[in-house]
Amino acid sequence: MNYRMIANILGWLMIFESIFLAVPMITAVVYWESTFWVFLGTAAFCLAAGLVITRFKPGNTTLYAREGFVIVSLSWIVLSLFGAVPFVLSGAIPSFIDALFEAVSGFSTTGATVINDVESMPRSILMWRSFTHWIGGMGVLVFIMAFLPLSGGQNMHIMKAESPGPSVGKLVPHVKTTALLLYSIYFVLTLAMFIALIIGGMDVFEALNTAFATGGTGGMGVRNSSMGEYAPHIQIIVTVFMAMFAINFNSYFFIIHAKFREAFTTEVITFLAIAGISATVIAFNINGIYNNMGDSVRHSAFTVASIMSTTGFSTEDFNLWPELSRSLIVMLMFIGGCAGSTSGGIKLSRILILFKGMKKELELLIHPKQVKKIKIDGHPIEHEVVRSVNVYMVGYVLVFAVSMVILSFDEMDLITNFTAVASAINNVGPGLELAGPASNFSIFSEPVKLVLIFDMLAGRLELFPILLLFSPTTWKK
Amino acid sequence: MNYRMIANILGWLMIFESIFLAVPMITAVVYWESTFWVFLGTAAFCLAAGLVITRFKPGNTTLYAREGFVIVSLSWIVLSLFGAVPFVLSGAIPSFIDALFEAVSGFSTTGATVINDVESMPRSILMWRSFTHWIGGMGVLVFIMAFLPLSGGQNMHIMKAESPGPSVGKLVPHVKTTALLLYSIYFVLTLAMFIALIIGGMDVFEALNTAFATGGTGGMGVRNSSMGEYAPHIQIIVTVFMAMFAINFNSYFFIIHAKFREAFTTEVITFLAIAGISATVIAFNINGIYNNMGDSVRHSAFTVASIMSTTGFSTEDFNLWPELSRSLIVMLMFIGGCAGSTSGGIKLSRILILFKGMKKELELLIHPKQVKKIKIDGHPIEHEVVRSVNVYMVGYVLVFAVSMVILSFDEMDLITNFTAVASAINNVGPGLELAGPASNFSIFSEPVKLVLIFDMLAGRLELFPILLLFSPTTWKK
Repeated sequence: MNYRMIANILGWLMIFESIFLAVPMITAVVYWESTFWVFLGTAAFCLAAGLVITRFKPGNTTLYAREGFVIVSLSWIVLSLFGAVPFVLSGAIPSFIDALFEAVSGFSTTGATVINDVESMPRSILMWRSFTHWIGGMGVLVFIMAFLPLSGGQNMHIMKAESPGPSVGKLVPHVKTTALLLYSIYFVLTLAMFIALIIGGMDVFEALNTAFATGGTGGMGVRNSSMGEYAPHIQIIVTVFMAMFAINFNSYFFIIHAKFREAFTTEVITFLAIAGISATVIAFNINGIYNNMGDSVRHSAFTVASIMSTTGFSTEDFNLWPELSRSLIVMLMFIGGCAGSTSGGIKLSRILILFKGMKKELELLIHPKQVKKIKIDGHPIEHEVVRSVNVYMVGYVLVFAVSMVILSFDEMDLITNFTAVASAINNVGPGLELAGPASNFSIFSEPVKLVLIFDMLAGRLELFPILLLFSPTTWKK
Repeated sequence: MNYRMIANILGWLMIFESIFLAVPMITAVVYWESTFWVFLGTAAFCLAAGLVITRFKPGNTTLYAREGFVIVSLSWIVLSLFGAVPFVLSGAIPSFIDALFEAVSGFSTTGATVINDVESMPRSILMWRSFTHWIGGMGVLVFIMAFLPLSGGQNMHIMKAESPGPSVGKLVPHVKTTALLLYSIYFVLTLAMFIALIIGGMDVFEALNTAFATGGTGGMGVRNSSMGEYAPHIQIIVTVFMAMFAINFNSYFFIIHAKFREAFTTEVITFLAIAGISATVIAFNINGIYNNMGDSVRHSAFTVASIMSTTGFSTEDFNLWPELSRSLIVMLMFIGGCAGSTSGGIKLSRILILFKGMKKELELLIHPKQVKKIKIDGHPIEHEVVRSVNVYMVGYVLVFAVSMVILSFDEMDLITNFTAVASAINNVGPGLELAGPASNFSIFSEPVKLVLIFDMLAGRLELFPILLLFSPTTWKK
């Protein structure tokens, strides 16, 4: 294990974290908040520590797969640990475990909160929460790696471990250029949303927060009612952008180049189909509550976009909706959005591979000597990828089951526990019952919060990097 | 596809079903019930049809893997279709879908019922329900195949498809002799339980029913309160035998031969450990209800043995227990018993393989060139088996998810739906809430009952044979 190189990259990460902390710092200046000193202190410490650590240059900059995984998971842990500090020092969230929960929920783009009354919080604190979503959405390491002198193959290890989805598609031959293109799309989409919200009449602070939280498909809002108090046209803008951030960013690259066939992949079409059907079914199902098809469709479309993109904003308390809607919402939590987007969940490309893989396996039982690869959009899927998706699902189920057992000891009801774990591991935010949109995660005990912190990180980093931290092989010479 | 050979075996199956129907027929004679004519008529029809079909000898008796899978699933469907007839004709269950649900629940050893008041049923009907459990427990086809002139390799296809667990262990070189040994153990254990219940003071009819229903780990009882009204010592006898029927029958073979190290495999030890820990935790958790550690332990041990063996008997309505107990019970439903027993669920050997496989996969991420097989009890597990277990889990999750979506349309609550599917696919019987032990499955709509019928069969036959029925490849030339 190349510990010196790991330390070096973590040092760089701390320097970048100090830069990120400038955003809430500036917010504190604008609104004349005393939290300025907290952010300044934290940023100064991160910067100083980062500068000291990065002064020691590692002699050997080689990174193997295991260093890649360790760097990714340690980076996210370090990012969250220091990201939690301003919450504690400002007094916003006095308990460190709670603050860590909030920070991990932010960076992992989950959006579950332990804060009862967000409206009483300083604006800089709210900005920091939203901005952690935006940082976490696309992943920070690939961004940092673009500045470090490493060969392309080594970046690939990091990119593989940090990017959502079963396989990383390179848009252009160079990893760095691909990363740059994706970050540009991310930036432009977020900016477009910000402008749309401003035109819609939202104030700058709320528009910026909403754009950051939607861009990262996080879901921490600045109002206690999430998106419930905003005008219908604002809710519609948010609906559209939540759906857009759940679509593979590669599609936007292809749309810009007028390659529409490449843009509308099977995954994207399946995503739109599932979203459309679910929104329709839920709209009819909740029409008894709203007695107005316009409202029903708006709330249904918003909720479906919010859950499938795993943002977690809400306009209404869907926990109170009829059972059919509730069940569908829970199913959608697991599905999530497309690979290569900022959304969480299992992701549609994985589900497509699972279904096609299952079909092929059944055929193999009958024709054991058949050697046929499954195809999606005409491209053969490597056995390696199919296998890794199968293993991912097994790991997912095991982590889910073990988490459920530990949560049970809190004596909450089964739906609360089940949807809390589902919400954490899929990076959604709200669940049902006591973990529902009208509630928050402060009700859970500290051991349960630690389990959910683990689940959120495991979900965001797609299991393997976090699980590998606990494997002795990783640390063996 | 060798249709003539498939028809021939289905013909033999019908002849055997007519013999099985003799058991309730004799019960009807003993208790002078008019249902005698119903059983006689059904048996006569099955016998006549079976004799006619088997008169046409197939020229070619070769069976390939696909015929094996098709025979197994069609056999269980035919068995259930004709097994449902007496329920309808006797007027016990007027609707055919309901009767089919009851028959599938019986043969698949699930034990979920649509009958509100079992005590008002003719004794011959109750006997048929219990006896279907006993037939379904060990699987009927391997039994029949022992009488048909096929080579060992062809029996193996059937045995693989019908036997519970990830791989079939041959105790002795010949498949037929292995099958005979396992059936003998099954018979002797059932007889031992019957004698124990008689000594315990149960009457012959109830003891026979209880022994059949426990042997197959089915769980349809003859009383509305399941096992709740019986004396504590009877409940303890049932507890012990439920646990015994959930242990790999190979272990008994080894115990008889004084090979104790082979008998207590990792799987058996893990089973006993999980059962012991769960029973202890639940006993403490429910002690607030019973205020008597003796009662708490008895109910807890009974419930854990019932759920892990997937029998589904109950002494108390565990739906009313605290959340921790309820959650643990749901987890145990998924785990099930050991491979090579009559129990359902995912089974411990699979779970062990999943955990060890996961561990190996994580190591592979770090050392991609490592070629190491996982081992259980010192025996290497073939890659083929690990892969099939992974695919099984994926199929399991997909079937579960699709079932949940369809069940949602019944507008029942999430816990009812979730535990009803869990209970069906794991062949347990009761779930929680409206599918709880104090309730029954007559509340569900007919489409939902059809889904649960599918799940029960898919669960009992461990997915692949039933899923293959729906794969076009199976039927292609």
